[in-house]
Amino acid sequence: MTTEREKLRWNGWGLTASGFDLAGHDDEVWQWLAAELGLSKLESRHAKRLDEIELPAIRLDEERLGELRRLLGDEHVKTDAFQRAFHARGKSYHDLLYLRSGDLAVAPDAVVYPGSAEEVIAVLRWAAANAVSVVPYGGGSSVVGGVNAERGEKHVAVITLDTTRLSRVLEVDEQSRTATIEAGIYGPELEQQLATRGYTLGHFPQSFQFSTLGGWIAARGAGQQSNRYGRAEDWLVSARVATPDGLWSTETFPASAAGPDLNDVVAGGEGCFGVITEATVHVHPVPQESDYRGYLFKDFGRGADAMRQIVQEGLPVAMLRLSDAEETRFFSAFSALRKPPGRVERAADRVLELGGWSEGRCLMLVGIEGEADNVKASLARSSSIVRGCGGFPLGRGAGKSWHKSRFAMPYLRDPLLDRGIGVDTLETSTSWANLLPLHRVVTGAIRDALHAHAAFDGARPMVMCHISHCYEDGASLYFTFVFPQAEPGGEIAQWTAVKHAASDAIAAHGGTISHHHGVGIDHAPWLAREKGEIGIRLLRALKRELDPEGILNPKKLLP
Amino acid sequence: MTTEREKLRWNGWGLTASGFDLAGHDDEVWQWLAAELGLSKLESRHAKRLDEIELPAIRLDEERLGELRRLLGDEHVKTDAFQRAFHARGKSYHDLLYLRSGDLAVAPDAVVYPGSAEEVIAVLRWAAANAVSVVPYGGGSSVVGGVNAERGEKHVAVITLDTTRLSRVLEVDEQSRTATIEAGIYGPELEQQLATRGYTLGHFPQSFQFSTLGGWIAARGAGQQSNRYGRAEDWLVSARVATPDGLWSTETFPASAAGPDLNDVVAGGEGCFGVITEATVHVHPVPQESDYRGYLFKDFGRGADAMRQIVQEGLPVAMLRLSDAEETRFFSAFSALRKPPGRVERAADRVLELGGWSEGRCLMLVGIEGEADNVKASLARSSSIVRGCGGFPLGRGAGKSWHKSRFAMPYLRDPLLDRGIGVDTLETSTSWANLLPLHRVVTGAIRDALHAHAAFDGARPMVMCHISHCYEDGASLYFTFVFPQAEPGGEIAQWTAVKHAASDAIAAHGGTISHHHGVGIDHAPWLAREKGEIGIRLLRALKRELDPEGILNPKKLLP
Repeated sequence: MTTEREKLRWNGWGLTASGFDLAGHDDEVWQWLAAELGLSKLESRHAKRLDEIELPAIRLDEERLGELRRLLGDEHVKTDAFQRAFHARGKSYHDLLYLRSGDLAVAPDAVVYPGSAEEVIAVLRWAAANAVSVVPYGGGSSVVGGVNAERGEKHVAVITLDTTRLSRVLEVDEQSRTATIEAGIYGPELEQQLATRGYTLGHFPQSFQFSTLGGWIAARGAGQQSNRYGRAEDWLVSARVATPDGLWSTETFPASAAGPDLNDVVAGGEGCFGVITEATVHVHPVPQESDYRGYLFKDFGRGADAMRQIVQEGLPVAMLRLSDAEETRFFSAFSALRKPPGRVERAADRVLELGGWSEGRCLMLVGIEGEADNVKASLARSSSIVRGCGGFPLGRGAGKSWHKSRFAMPYLRDPLLDRGIGVDTLETSTSWANLLPLHRVVTGAIRDALHAHAAFDGARPMVMCHISHCYEDGASLYFTFVFPQAEPGGEIAQWTAVKHAASDAIAAHGGTISHHHGVGIDHAPWLAREKGEIGIRLLRALKRELDPEGILNPKKLLP
Repeated sequence: MTTEREKLRWNGWGLTASGFDLAGHDDEVWQWLAAELGLSKLESRHAKRLDEIELPAIRLDEERLGELRRLLGDEHVKTDAFQRAFHARGKSYHDLLYLRSGDLAVAPDAVVYPGSAEEVIAVLRWAAANAVSVVPYGGGSSVVGGVNAERGEKHVAVITLDTTRLSRVLEVDEQSRTATIEAGIYGPELEQQLATRGYTLGHFPQSFQFSTLGGWIAARGAGQQSNRYGRAEDWLVSARVATPDGLWSTETFPASAAGPDLNDVVAGGEGCFGVITEATVHVHPVPQESDYRGYLFKDFGRGADAMRQIVQEGLPVAMLRLSDAEETRFFSAFSALRKPPGRVERAADRVLELGGWSEGRCLMLVGIEGEADNVKASLARSSSIVRGCGGFPLGRGAGKSWHKSRFAMPYLRDPLLDRGIGVDTLETSTSWANLLPLHRVVTGAIRDALHAHAAFDGARPMVMCHISHCYEDGASLYFTFVFPQAEPGGEIAQWTAVKHAASDAIAAHGGTISHHHGVGIDHAPWLAREKGEIGIRLLRALKRELDPEGILNPKKLLP
C-alpha cells in the first residue's frame, strides 16, 4: 500500500520502485529535450542521499515524547530520520530543491499517527498546552508549501500529524448517494472500497495515487473529471474537524438556509483551522461507459470558444481540456519519440499540414462518462459544437493515450532534475471574457522571467499551458514551464524570480492566485490582494477562535 | 412600480389594488373551507386601520435626524406613520398577527433610503457612532422575523435601511454569463432589465414580485426553478457588502482555491454582517421552450422515488414538485370550486377512482426549460422514470394552472385572516433516506399541536406538505397548515405552540431548521443545535469582526 512510507520517495515522486517509462527511447528523448532547451549537453545533478544529511536536533525532550507515546502508543510516534525527512516538505519543485540539496532545516521534530478523531484532538490539546506547532499531513503532495514542517514563532517545536491511519469508508447511504469516509484515506483505497458497492467519488487529480480525501478538501482540490463530479467544495456534504477545543461538525442538511455555510471554511482551510478527520461526500454509481477523444483547433481561441459553448449549454461532459499551441507541439513531439508514428499517422499529419494545420494547432480532449444513452447524446451534441467552432476530430486515440498516462507525469520530474532541467507548474482561473488576455500575459511574464534568469546565453525555456477545468463563468489556466536550471546553488533564486513574476502578473490581470493547488506558503503573499483587507480579517478572526495558540499549520494561508 | 411603498399593503400582502381572484365563486369557496375546518360559520375579524393606531414615540431627536438628512438628502429620511408601520415587520403569519392587532411596539424610529454603497456605509458609520440599530430591508417579505425593527439592547434607537433605491443592472458580461446588479432591485424589474439583453437570472420564489436580489442572497433563497438555475448561494458569483468599516468585496474568480470562500458568509448572513449593496450573479439565456406537466402517484413514497431518480440521474429539469395526499386533495377541491370541472375532467376522475386512485393520490409537477431539443429529450426521459414508478400522466393542464397562480397564493392569506382562519407555512430539508420519516413526524407534530391548541371542540385543522426542491442527496419539505384561529388575543400563543412543536420535531428528527426561509428571529432558538457550539462561536467571531457595535439587524440569526 502507498501508505507505507518506506516504499515512497522522501525527496521525489511516488513509489521508489516506480518511475516514468520512456519505452526504451530514453536517449532520443533526452537528446531532443536538450536541443529544445538550447543545452549543448545534459548535466548530471544528483540528489543527496539521506545518509549524507544531518538532520537538525530534535527539540522535544524525552518527557514530551513520552507524553505523546502515552497518548497514541509507542509505535505511532516516530522520530527517525526517514520519517522526519519524508514529512519535511511537500512535492513542489521548490520543495525538491531543498530536499535534493540536503537542506532539512525545515523538518518535524516528531511525526505522530493518531488512530481516531479523539486521538487527533488529544494531540492538538497537548500541542496547545506545550507550545508545539502541528502540521496536518495526508499524502503530502502539496505543491505550494502546504505541509512544510514550519514552526510557529512562539513555539518550541513542530510535529507533523500524519492522518493516514484514518482510512476507513464508514458508511454508504445508497438512497441519498452519500458516503462517510475517514479523511486520511488515499485515492486508490477510497475508490476501491466504494467500487465494491458500485460507487465512485470521481475525484481524480493528477496526485490521485498519493493524496488523501482530507487533503483534497483542505486545499479545495479539483479532479480531472470535475465537470461531472464537482470540485472538493462541491462534493463535500459535511465534515468532522478536530480542533484544540474539541470536535467541530459542519451541518449535514441538503441546501440548508440556516445561516452561513461553514463547510466553506473547512474547504480551503488548509489545516489552519483544524484537522479534517472524516467527511461525508456525494458519491455516484460507477459510470457504465466512458468516451475520451481528441479534437484539433487552428488556434487556442477557437478551442476555448468550443469549450465555453459546451459548458454553458450545460452538456453533462466529465472533462474538457485544451492545450495551447506550445503544449500541443511539445507533447506531440514527446509522444512521437516514445512511440514513433506509423505510416497512417504520418500521412494524416501531412494532410493536416497541407490544410494549414501546422503552426499553432491546439489539442482539445473531451471526456464523457455515464449511462450509455446519455454518453451517446452528449457525444453527438459536443461534436457538433466542436465542428461549429472549426474543430477537427482525432478519434479516441488521443483520449486513450491521455487516460493511460494521466497520473504518470509527476514521475518525469525526478529524472529531469537529475539532468539539470527544472520543471514547475502553476495555475489560476478567470472569467471567460478575461481568459485569452490572461493566458497571454502570464505566459509572457513566465517566459520573460525565465530569460532574465537563464542559466546561460542561448537557453530556450519552454512555457506551455492548458485549460484544465471550466465553468459557466470562466475557466482555469494550468501552466507548465521547463528550463535549464541555474548553476547549483542558484536554483532557488531562479525559481523565486519566476514565481514572483507569474504571481504578480496573475494578481494584476484578474486571475486568482490558485485554482486548485491552494495557498500554502508560496501563494500567501498574494492572498490579501485577492480577499481584501476585510476578507483577511475575517479569516484571522476564524483562526483565532478555533486555534487561539496558533499551533495549526503555521505560516500557511494566513502567515 | 412595486417599490412605491404607498401602493403596497403595510399589514398584508402585495399591492393594495390587487387580491386573490376567486373567479366569482367566493361564497362556495368560503362555505367549503368553513366546513373543511369544522367551523359552523365564518367570523369577521378586521385588521386595525393605521389611523386607529398610535405609534411609539420617535427615539431620535431632531439633531440626529438632521445628521441623517444631511447624509442622504431630506426626502430620503422618512418618519411618517405609514413608512414606520410598513417597515415594522416582515410578512409572516406571526408578523401579521401583530400588525393587524395594531401592535406597532416594534417599529423603526426612522426609515432611510440610501442611494449608493457609499451612503449605506455612511449610515452604518453614523449608526455605530450613535448607538443606533440598523435593520436592512429590501422587499420586506421575510417570514421568519428577519426584518423586524428590533432595537439592540445597548442602543438608543433603531432605523430601517431600505435598499430599494439601489436598483440598477450595472453590467452584463455576455461571454462569462454574469451580471452585476444593485441589490435593492425587485424581482420583476431585475428580470425585465435582463430580458432586454436576452438573459434571465431564473430566480422565481413565491415572493418574486415583492422581494429583492439582496434579500434572496441574505436568506439563501431558492426559486421555484432551482433545479435549473440554482439557489442564491449557487448563482452568487461575488458581492459588495457595506459594513461599518467600509466596503467588503468577495472574490470574483471561478472556482478559486485561494482559501475559504467568503461568499458563503454573505449568503445566509441575513443582514447581520453587513448590507449587500451589489452582487455579480450567473445569468442564462431566456429559455426557448418550457414544458410544465402533472403526474399522479398512488402514494407519496412512489412520487418521491421518481423525483429522486430524476435528480440523481442528473436530468436537466427546472422544477420538481410533489404534493402529499392532503395537499393534493385540498388544492384539487379548491380548484374545482373556482373552476368547476367539465364533462371530460369528471369522466377522467371517475376512471381514476375506479382504478383505485381515489384516496391518497399525490400530484407531481415536472417543469423543464431550455433549448427545444434538450426539453424534448428530458421530457422523454423523465416521463419514462415517472412511468417506471407508477406515475399517471395528466398532461400540461396541471402545469399551466400551477404556473398561472404561482405568485398569487400569498394574497389569499389576508381574506382568510379577515374570516378568523389562520394559515402558516414552514419548511425543512433532509436526506432522501430520512425524507418520508421526517414528513410523517413533522405532519404529526403540527397536527397534534393544532389540536391541542384548537379554538373549539370539533375544529379540524389541515396540515399539508409538498416537496418543493430536490437535490442529489435529499429534498425539502414545505408544510402549509390552515386552522380556525384561537379567540382574539390568543392567536400568538396558539401560533407559538405550533411553531415550537414543529421546530422541535424537525430538530429532533434530522431536518434543518430552514431550507429557504432563513433563520431570522423565529428560528434562532434552534440554530445552535444545528450549527453546534463551535459553529455558533465562529459565526459570532465573524459578527464581532464586521460589526463590533452590534448595530446590524439585532436579535436575528445570532441573538
